[in-house]
Amino acid sequence: MRRTENRLRQQKREDRRAISGGGGQPAWQKFRNPMSPLAVLDDGELALIDDVALRILEELGLEFQNRETFGILERHGAMVDRATGMVRFERGLIRELVAKAPESFTLHARNPERTLTMGGNWINFAPVGGPPNVSDLDRGRRPGSFEAQCDLIRLHQSLNVLHLAGSAPVEAIDLPAESRHLDFYRAQITLSDRGWNARGIGRRRVEDAVEMVALARGRRREDLLAEPSLLCVINVNSPRRVDNELLAGLMAMAENGQALVVTPFTLAGAMSPVTIAGSLAQQTAEALAVIAFCQMVRPGTPVIFGGFTSNVDMKSGAPAFGTPEYVRAVIIGGQVARRWKLPYRSSNVTSSNVVDVQAANESMMSIWAAIMSHANLVLHATGWLEGGLTASFEKSVIDADMIAGMVAWLQPLDISAAALGYEAIAATPPGGHFFGSDHTLARFETAFHHSMTADLRPFQTWAEDGARTATDRAHRIWKSLLEHYEPPPLDAAIAEAIDAFVERRKREIAGGINRP
Amino acid sequence: MRRTENRLRQQKREDRRAISGGGGQPAWQKFRNPMSPLAVLDDGELALIDDVALRILEELGLEFQNRETFGILERHGAMVDRATGMVRFERGLIRELVAKAPESFTLHARNPERTLTMGGNWINFAPVGGPPNVSDLDRGRRPGSFEAQCDLIRLHQSLNVLHLAGSAPVEAIDLPAESRHLDFYRAQITLSDRGWNARGIGRRRVEDAVEMVALARGRRREDLLAEPSLLCVINVNSPRRVDNELLAGLMAMAENGQALVVTPFTLAGAMSPVTIAGSLAQQTAEALAVIAFCQMVRPGTPVIFGGFTSNVDMKSGAPAFGTPEYVRAVIIGGQVARRWKLPYRSSNVTSSNVVDVQAANESMMSIWAAIMSHANLVLHATGWLEGGLTASFEKSVIDADMIAGMVAWLQPLDISAAALGYEAIAATPPGGHFFGSDHTLARFETAFHHSMTADLRPFQTWAEDGARTATDRAHRIWKSLLEHYEPPPLDAAIAEAIDAFVERRKREIAGGINRP
Repeated sequence: MRRTENRLRQQKREDRRAISGGGGQPAWQKFRNPMSPLAVLDDGELALIDDVALRILEELGLEFQNRETFGILERHGAMVDRATGMVRFERGLIRELVAKAPESFTLHARNPERTLTMGGNWINFAPVGGPPNVSDLDRGRRPGSFEAQCDLIRLHQSLNVLHLAGSAPVEAIDLPAESRHLDFYRAQITLSDRGWNARGIGRRRVEDAVEMVALARGRRREDLLAEPSLLCVINVNSPRRVDNELLAGLMAMAENGQALVVTPFTLAGAMSPVTIAGSLAQQTAEALAVIAFCQMVRPGTPVIFGGFTSNVDMKSGAPAFGTPEYVRAVIIGGQVARRWKLPYRSSNVTSSNVVDVQAANESMMSIWAAIMSHANLVLHATGWLEGGLTASFEKSVIDADMIAGMVAWLQPLDISAAALGYEAIAATPPGGHFFGSDHTLARFETAFHHSMTADLRPFQTWAEDGARTATDRAHRIWKSLLEHYEPPPLDAAIAEAIDAFVERRKREIAGGINRP
Repeated sequence: MRRTENRLRQQKREDRRAISGGGGQPAWQKFRNPMSPLAVLDDGELALIDDVALRILEELGLEFQNRETFGILERHGAMVDRATGMVRFERGLIRELVAKAPESFTLHARNPERTLTMGGNWINFAPVGGPPNVSDLDRGRRPGSFEAQCDLIRLHQSLNVLHLAGSAPVEAIDLPAESRHLDFYRAQITLSDRGWNARGIGRRRVEDAVEMVALARGRRREDLLAEPSLLCVINVNSPRRVDNELLAGLMAMAENGQALVVTPFTLAGAMSPVTIAGSLAQQTAEALAVIAFCQMVRPGTPVIFGGFTSNVDMKSGAPAFGTPEYVRAVIIGGQVARRWKLPYRSSNVTSSNVVDVQAANESMMSIWAAIMSHANLVLHATGWLEGGLTASFEKSVIDADMIAGMVAWLQPLDISAAALGYEAIAATPPGGHFFGSDHTLARFETAFHHSMTADLRPFQTWAEDGARTATDRAHRIWKSLLEHYEPPPLDAAIAEAIDAFVERRKREIAGGINRP
């Protein structure tokens, strides 16, 4: 009885600690995977995929829907059919151009401590980006708003596993479409100190991002040519079509020396062949063509080879994420990207409509695959739900906790004589315990990783305390993180310059000048 | 609207299909991991662990609580302190004895198609064993009963990912303790056709198992010496203590040529050092000592090196499962077992009190680690909840589905020219789709793995249909599996012989003869 009371008191202290401030998270740190990447295919098999990819580019080509690209493509030796927009590439040309892309590059953030390496065995996590909806346990699922967007940016800044602030975590559909990118950029700069993504729909949104990130970092625009400070995702509208506005955004990014994440949207059975091998061949072809084009626009443009291949549910046509097919595509996609000496992008995805066991299992499959494949950039690493249609506050915390556990087990193991602990074992009699041993007392506070969302209490204690699930606990944690959120320091002059820029651009847009 | 109706009708058909009979599971199949096992430590580092383990055995020893073992130990060169029961082993003796254990062995089942290989890159899954409680969404958590035990055995037999029937899936506490092993053995033999575990508490329970498995397989007892047909888990009461009754069971198993799964219970910070390196050194020492003893009893006794190292929550003392520390211990444990040329056992574990996101995440961590480490035997692969205190019907289905997904992604990828699908890509125009392509139509029914528990429908459809979670769906699935369960064929004469044996033994036990 007395023992139960003590345990309950102790638990209350723990609960307070767990949901206060950092929620007991490990500190922000850069992360590299110390192990070799997993190999599913051997070199000969990878060569088969590359060969089909190159044959697609030589014989079939991609449709470039932006006529401004034709001259650039032709000047660099691509074969352009100006009537249809179909563009073909000799394989030698692809090899030559892709080789101009850096194998690894530095992505700068306004807080220099958040500057990252994209390449090698570095793995960088960015939160959910792009959903039209947002959800949490209090208010359910609803359309995105600027308020929700800002709250998610604050939450992401509070999650220590996230290296980047990423894309708009949810659409602010309550703001005018032609200027909401400015509000989003300002929110990223003022509420977060991490790297973020420009919106690649048309040139103007990219130009605005470049101006604003230069202001935020206290650099001139021309300095940024050598200091990539923005990411931008360019999806291919698979099969084999690149959108007009995205190509405009791509050109603006490349001209400014900023980094492109080129990601074909190859859902096997719908936008690519029903076979994973065929989808990977198509993914490789589409990614290489667009990456080659980036190098035409500006040689040395930093790019990331994006893999997003999954399958559809053949019964409903709905996309299926975190599936066995997805895991294979992620791991082989990493092998392909490394063959081309390019950084690699993956994701944390699920089809589930709710933060349940399905969401957890599909996300775990995604994250294990991403980490085993040495994805250098993991987008949607936290909070993605419902095939990307919803950003979930609870899942943000659940995913962050899951990733923290992955990062923890991949830390080097201490196998010093002291860690091996022969003396501690000798000092503990058979059937005894190590709770009170000096070896334990010297280490117990830091010996083990602490999960934010796991409840390790006995069943009875847990049941009497409300029988909460991990999703319930995640709900309390994100609310506490937002309560304790403090914006990262930002020079007042920079904040003013950002405000002035946004106000000027909004006036221009309202007046019909340089509209996106 | 029409479309939604069609989709709903289609979904109803799917639901019926999914929850009927096999639940859309892949067929029963043996499984080998085609990839190399993951390596966290290099050979030099593994040698450090082995060295401390062997030093523990040379200088400290283990307490053997069964006096019957002393003569055997002394005859084979171990140093026995008969006053304390402490037994030490020269490292050369350990190497010599452990080398007598087979690197791989065949485990026979009464259905020869369920006969398995323990070793190499074969991975065999067995369901939850040993909990005192059982739970499901209808009846909640309650003490185990013989009825629940039988239902779990039926459910396990219905889950195609399970290679074995395993230990008692829940204690039948409504049956007399001294004879309930007989009811359990009979239930395994009649309700399942897969391999199962003897209870290792004392000689008699093992002898009864040997008699009954011989009857079930239509073999003489002496035939079984060359045909291991039973597993038995022998836990070490860490630190460094082996229980009297378990040693008696061990000797009976080894004398009969049956297979022992030797598993130290090394919870870092409680029963072993707070460091994972120290816990692994102690786990190695304890496992090797008991395995060496098995070889003294009968050279060539099939054994499996069991890894169960995890950590405790240092704040509450509660065991923590599926943690980052656990993942490292599982993977390094596998490396250690392979160095000693022994098959390896791992588990699917969680501390969660409920089938929630915590349970899923901890189980995923366990299963990925088990598969990446090439565990040849994965106990508790389905249904383990609450640190092993509860067997859950819903989690059985959830875990089986998770494992089926793992097995699916580890199948060899078809990268034939037909699979690479150049022609299908050529035939599909930019921006088109592959739904109707011949390449798709020829493959769509079998192209993708089907999850039993995932719901891939759009949010609105899912919400209008009850907004069920994966755990809710697992509930419907296990009930349907039990409704459709049919006992595997069993020769009537064998069934009679089993009944006669059980009745005779129950009379004997009631009369005080050969009580366990």
